[in-house]
This record gives sequence, structure tokens and C-alpha cells, in this order.
Amino acid sequence: MCQLLGMNANTPTDVTFSFTGFAQRAGRTADHTDGWGIAFFEGQGVRHFVDHARALDSPVAELIRRYPIKSCNVIAHIRKATQGAVQLANCHPFVRELWGHYWVFAHNGDLKDFRPRLHGHFHPVGSTDSEHAFCWLMQELSKSHAGLPPVQELTLTLRELAGHIAPQGTFNFLLSNGQALWAHASTHLHWIERRHPFAVAQLSDEDLQVDFAPLTTPSDRVAVIATAPLTNNEQWTAFAPGELGVFVQGQRLI
Amino acid sequence: MCQLLGMNANTPTDVTFSFTGFAQRAGRTADHTDGWGIAFFEGQGVRHFVDHARALDSPVAELIRRYPIKSCNVIAHIRKATQGAVQLANCHPFVRELWGHYWVFAHNGDLKDFRPRLHGHFHPVGSTDSEHAFCWLMQELSKSHAGLPPVQELTLTLRELAGHIAPQGTFNFLLSNGQALWAHASTHLHWIERRHPFAVAQLSDEDLQVDFAPLTTPSDRVAVIATAPLTNNEQWTAFAPGELGVFVQGQRLI
Repeated sequence: MCQLLGMNANTPTDVTFSFTGFAQRAGRTADHTDGWGIAFFEGQGVRHFVDHARALDSPVAELIRRYPIKSCNVIAHIRKATQGAVQLANCHPFVRELWGHYWVFAHNGDLKDFRPRLHGHFHPVGSTDSEHAFCWLMQELSKSHAGLPPVQELTLTLRELAGHIAPQGTFNFLLSNGQALWAHASTHLHWIERRHPFAVAQLSDEDLQVDFAPLTTPSDRVAVIATAPLTNNEQWTAFAPGELGVFVQGQRLI
Repeated sequence: MCQLLGMNANTPTDVTFSFTGFAQRAGRTADHTDGWGIAFFEGQGVRHFVDHARALDSPVAELIRRYPIKSCNVIAHIRKATQGAVQLANCHPFVRELWGHYWVFAHNGDLKDFRPRLHGHFHPVGSTDSEHAFCWLMQELSKSHAGLPPVQELTLTLRELAGHIAPQGTFNFLLSNGQALWAHASTHLHWIERRHPFAVAQLSDEDLQVDFAPLTTPSDRVAVIATAPLTNNEQWTAFAPGELGVFVQGQRLI
């Protein structure tokens, strides 16, 4: 199994605090050591970092912890290989282009029996069930709409598509096109919204706390989504099994 | 205009020496300061770094200079914006997936009047003529072959396609699918093959030299392609206008 981290904000925000706690799970507080990855939207563009080394001490992860890349949509993943070898092509998140937008996807869970025929223009490069499922999602999205539909409409389509895949195994995933961030839970996925008045947050996985108040303005809103809560002094909400949520501008829309 | 750097090798090789000289052109020895990018194939996977800051002092470029990522196919680009704003979505190289392989593309030159209709599944995310041309190349490749053909056959198709685009402007480009590296010249593009016996190379853009002999084995072969020669004590060969070359396993095949 793996772990997921997502962030959606209404103003470009760095994810160094959350990522620092999250990366501890790649060898210190948990054993997700078979590679990791993170993608940051910046406008329409994407910064995409993947590494087959563990996030705890990878030089690339060190850069992410030190260099505060600001983004409104971030998806990160630490991997414990269950299907597919430990190699770069199998590291999440995966990126594809559809309708002139990049789409970023990361998955936690197994879909052992889900290998639908891919008859469209999206094919996996690596050997994971996750990338196969992502390619199928992209294929079906491209058939469902002629171009990028509004977020609400996309959410209905994604809910239907996720409903096809979820019964085949465990399908916790994060997906973003830079405009919204979708989160689907089969088992473990939690979320939190931070907004004014901002307070102190204390990481669960490391002895580190941050006071968001002096770092924010009253209009800032940030939603964080993670497999397990990253802080131990805030109220995280668990997704129900089968629930698909969408976050826009730092708050949950649906 | 921009500058290109490519490397093709028969054994995973780091590109830190060449990149160090190349990055000097992003503000010190030349003024290509409007963003940069580099992509490394690692097996079928790709590490893709882009930044809208200049390569001379970008923290991400600093990582590339210090962390010797080893690869058999590398494409890098430093940008001086002529078309399209300075933003991440406009930074080369661009990446797309076709036939279950990633394709990496970087371009130097202008194609002001080349805006063919894109009726397939590849659409630009940014606003550059370069990404538009890349999407057209991918679209036409996908129509020309049902799956990944042998390198020689792909080279014939690419030569034909490049011949359509080149008359529309300046079309120096590098393209790789991790198996081969193609280089096409309209104006400025040079290449060199390094093989046993390896010797000392001296950068043109910085007071730095490296003796490749103790770092290599007799069977190693590395080809480097660059807009302008990166070293001043080796014999680089200029591409002729309209020439398309392909490099496999560290040597020029065609």
C-alpha cells in the first residue's frame, strides 16, 4: 500500500510543512520506501518530481523540503510496492495531457483484477495497476466530453467512472487538472480545511509545529487531503467508503 | 532564441559537466534567462525538471549540477522567450506519452506561421509555437504507425515530418523516446562522440575541465549534441541545414 497527500488552495501556498511530516512515513514512522513523487501545478504548467529512492533521504525530496514551491494544487505519493517493480516508471503521481490540460493522478490501493482494454490514446508506460486505471479514466473522460466541462459536470462523470473501478479492489486516489482536486476514498483518506483564524499545527510524525497565523492573510483558504491525518491537534474528517469529493479554491465544493 | 543540449549514451552517464557549461549561458556567457528545463530517461521513466527562473541560479538547476542523475538519454533547454510568456507551461522540454512510451521534445527557433490544425489527441498546454509543433509531430507519428516501429523506420517518418515543418521557420530540435535521440538542424546544432581513449575536456563557458579517462570504461560511448560546442579543445561537428540525425547507444546511427 502507499500513502497520498494532496493540497488545494485559493492562493499559491507551499506544502513544505505537510510534506516534511508525510516524508517521515517513507522509512521512519512507516515503511513506504519504494519511491515517491510530487507534482505542483503552476498556472497551467506542472513541476513533476519522481524518485525511486525513499522520500526520507532522497536529494530531490530534500530540495522539496527546502525550496518552498508555491502552488494551488499539489499531489504527492510515497510508495510501498505491491504491484510493479521499484523503478521510476512506476512512481506516482502520473501525468497525462487531455484537452490541452495536464492531469495528475496518484493512487493508494490494489486493483488486481482491473485490466480493462485500453482502446484509446492513453497507455501505461510502467507496469502498475494504478497507471492502467489512470489511463482508463483519461480514455473514458475523453469519450464523455468533447472538451473540458465545468467542474460540477466533470465530478459527476468521475463519480460514475470511479464507481466502475472501486469494486475491483481498493481505489483511494487524488486527481487534479490544476483547476480542481478530486479525492476518492475506498478505505483511508482524510481531509481538513484551514482558514481564518489560522492557528498552530503540530505534525504527528515529527516534532515540528508551525503557526500559520503570521504566514497567511484572512482571505487564504487551504484544504489538505492525506491518507492519515498529518497533525495531531486539528480535526481531520474521514472520507466515507465510496465518497468522491472535489476541492476548488481551498474548499470542498462537493 | 534558445539553446539545446542533448546526451545519448550506451551506459547511464551523468550530464553534470556539460550542464554546468550550458547553464552559464543562462545569464553569464549568454542571455537565455527566460526559464529552462531538463529531462532524463531512467528505464522507461522520465525525470522532468522545468523552472521559469534562469538556470544559472535556479535552486532546481543547482540540484542538477550537484546530484549526478545517470541516464542514457537527456534533453535540456534554456529559453530566451520569443513567442509565449515566461511561465512554467512554456518551458521546454515538453513530454507526452505515445504507444506506452514517453516522448521528450525541445526546440530552438521560431515557427511563426506554423499553426496546423490539431485534430488528434495531442494539444498544447502552453502558448509556444514549439509545443504546437511537438503536438503535431506526435499526432502525425500516431497516424503513421500502429505501434512503436524500429528506430530506422521512425527516423524516415520523422525526416519526412520535419521536412514539412522546417520551411515554416527555424526548426532545430531534439526528440527522444528513451531508446534513441533524434536531432534536427535548421541553423545551429553541433555534435560530438566521446569514446575510448577518453581524454580531458575543457568547458568553453567556464574555467572547468574534466578528465573522462578515470571516470569511464573502454566500452563507454557518449554522444553530446548542443546548439554551440560546449568545449574548446575537442572537435565538434556541425549539422548541415535540414539534416536529421539519430543517436543510439552513444553513437550516431544515421
